[in-house]
Amino acid sequence: MRAGILTIGDELINGFTVDTNAVWLSQALLSRGVSVAIKASVGDETGAIEAILDQWDGEYDWVITTGGLGPTHDDITKSAFCNYFDSEIRFDEGYWQKLVERFKGRGHTIPDNNRSQAEIPTKAEFIANPVGTAPGLKFISKSTTFIVLPGVPREMKAIMTDHVLPDLEGQAPIAWLTLHTAGIFESALAMKLEPLLAKLGGIQLAYLPSYRGVDLRLRSLATGEQGRSKVASAAGEIEAFLGERVYGRDGDTLASVVGQLLLARRETVALAESCSGGVTASDMTDVPGSSAYFKGGVVAYSDAAKVSQLGVNPATLETHGAVSEATARELAEGARIAFDATWGVATTGIAGPSGGSEEKPVGLVYLAVAGPDGTITREARLVADRLPHKSATAHAALNLLRLELLGHGH
Amino acid sequence: MRAGILTIGDELINGFTVDTNAVWLSQALLSRGVSVAIKASVGDETGAIEAILDQWDGEYDWVITTGGLGPTHDDITKSAFCNYFDSEIRFDEGYWQKLVERFKGRGHTIPDNNRSQAEIPTKAEFIANPVGTAPGLKFISKSTTFIVLPGVPREMKAIMTDHVLPDLEGQAPIAWLTLHTAGIFESALAMKLEPLLAKLGGIQLAYLPSYRGVDLRLRSLATGEQGRSKVASAAGEIEAFLGERVYGRDGDTLASVVGQLLLARRETVALAESCSGGVTASDMTDVPGSSAYFKGGVVAYSDAAKVSQLGVNPATLETHGAVSEATARELAEGARIAFDATWGVATTGIAGPSGGSEEKPVGLVYLAVAGPDGTITREARLVADRLPHKSATAHAALNLLRLELLGHGH
Repeated sequence: MRAGILTIGDELINGFTVDTNAVWLSQALLSRGVSVAIKASVGDETGAIEAILDQWDGEYDWVITTGGLGPTHDDITKSAFCNYFDSEIRFDEGYWQKLVERFKGRGHTIPDNNRSQAEIPTKAEFIANPVGTAPGLKFISKSTTFIVLPGVPREMKAIMTDHVLPDLEGQAPIAWLTLHTAGIFESALAMKLEPLLAKLGGIQLAYLPSYRGVDLRLRSLATGEQGRSKVASAAGEIEAFLGERVYGRDGDTLASVVGQLLLARRETVALAESCSGGVTASDMTDVPGSSAYFKGGVVAYSDAAKVSQLGVNPATLETHGAVSEATARELAEGARIAFDATWGVATTGIAGPSGGSEEKPVGLVYLAVAGPDGTITREARLVADRLPHKSATAHAALNLLRLELLGHGH
Repeated sequence: MRAGILTIGDELINGFTVDTNAVWLSQALLSRGVSVAIKASVGDETGAIEAILDQWDGEYDWVITTGGLGPTHDDITKSAFCNYFDSEIRFDEGYWQKLVERFKGRGHTIPDNNRSQAEIPTKAEFIANPVGTAPGLKFISKSTTFIVLPGVPREMKAIMTDHVLPDLEGQAPIAWLTLHTAGIFESALAMKLEPLLAKLGGIQLAYLPSYRGVDLRLRSLATGEQGRSKVASAAGEIEAFLGERVYGRDGDTLASVVGQLLLARRETVALAESCSGGVTASDMTDVPGSSAYFKGGVVAYSDAAKVSQLGVNPATLETHGAVSEATARELAEGARIAFDATWGVATTGIAGPSGGSEEKPVGLVYLAVAGPDGTITREARLVADRLPHKSATAHAALNLLRLELLGHGH
């Protein structure tokens, strides 16, 4: 079963809106065993919509469209479908009365521009909208089922969940699994994994690199239970092979994994952030329940704050500079003491765009982790672009803490 | 001039990745007067790519593709283009030697799987990649120019910026402008603006709501200089009408606007964050040069940290709780003193999913701004969903500071 997704709206092709509907639909369909083969977006223009319907009709089992159904969009999508299927429009008095009642029940008078919502193409089936006024529509051609949905995410999801996805139950779902790695580049990872992959038959592997490490997405060519078990065993082999470079699966983040390790040991952590500027704290606090092990942190963006809040020795700043191994060490130790935590983690570096020198270029960062047995530090050269630098630094710092926790756990 | 954008990669159609390349490309093209008529995504499959090339060739003036060029992707995109244009491949020894040298210069040996980066289709022009190893390619058919780019955003953007967009200079650009608002809902904004809009002819207005306020996107139906001046005068009228509800234009953020206000007054700010968990600090430090006015902040995720780092009175926590107006006030005042800043800003609330009660539900937040003339506080009910809550809280806190700065500037 293969599907195409068409999202309709000027805002989608002008680059002002990120197409989250298509992302949600892809995942929903995949979870029911339907592969999305193509996604497209066009503007509010009937000709462009009809051209796609013509190309996709007969090519895909399912075509899902979103958008262009609202009263302010002049029902572009409905017109395009009526043209393509040579369909008349009928006014559904019963549905209109329901809408009138629904508005009345909330103490409103229905605006007249909602009448178009009750205009149903004669060749379409009506699909109820549990949360809004624009109904979904279903057109069926020889070998393709077209589902026409409103663009409002909440309404689109409700119609899919209540009335479309249940029709797809019983399909064998496609099995996939994501492994998250840290501290290794895509090309090195690929070369390491090559011999292992040759042995893992029936598995597709995709590398998804970002400033926060490389994700490995495994997908089984088999479906259903067989696919699930193939993916699980392949993931297990890759994890065993890569060791500590794999930090988690699927919904795990470095912060959630570090949190689990701390919880299990009944330990706590505090942060001293300079160049990561609060991103590490934000990562930690994204995890529900993090207050159990995250005591807090200082974003020490000035030298004065490094001294007053974290007890860094002014002489260290004077001699080595704020971006130095020595300062990183004192920041981590200072955070540990100031927040009375088991572990202290520090970042200090040059996020740019200015502030770099030949000796200390933009992108340079020092990390430190202070713990019960002492303090370790690392120097790294991360991306020299402010926002990615903050993010990459936070990730590297949390990974250093994770490796320390694993090392001490042995 | 009309363009099509094709993004290539299994991760895009499976719903694992949001297609930010297409968003960036749309905006970049639009800024040069090229309208994007269609966007599509297909998986790593030559047949699917060739089908699109066939449909778009002759239909659009420009076709931009991203993805499928990396060493681990088996150069799917290059193969598809070679098939479609019936092109051979040549190995570019000169380019390969450059790559070898580049790696050597950084103390690395080039992995052998990078050789494919030097394989150039004979019918393509080579486009240099200023920041990576995969070059861009340009194919020209009768009436369509195809630009083939790597999928890594940083590389795609660098090639576009250095080598593709300059070719588009001289086109009459489409004029648009974004106004950012805070503290007013979309529907209220629309009702307020309706009478004004009737008077502003030739302007399209789109409402783009998010948890960080509603953006207003203005677009002129005229192009070039005329369009620009129409958009500018419409923006001026809307700003005058909405007053302090508009905090900036285009690339402005609340943090950058607050930063400008502080810089102009030679004042500084410090933060005490509880429920926003570091997001406010991260917003502040996203702005280059923010160290001039941002002294730092404490993410006080434990009661102990609120007391030890920010001098909150334990009796206040005992009597009113951590999520209270009284605690917010002491946090803001504590941050101001601890960091020796002109202003202190505090957040404390219930981000969820747990920790709520009937009296203090998830989403409740108290904000405070302490300044030279005293401290103000606000209670707000923001979205009851952890990550959006953190973000919305940071935004509301910075907006409160902005309004205080404006008030004191009068």
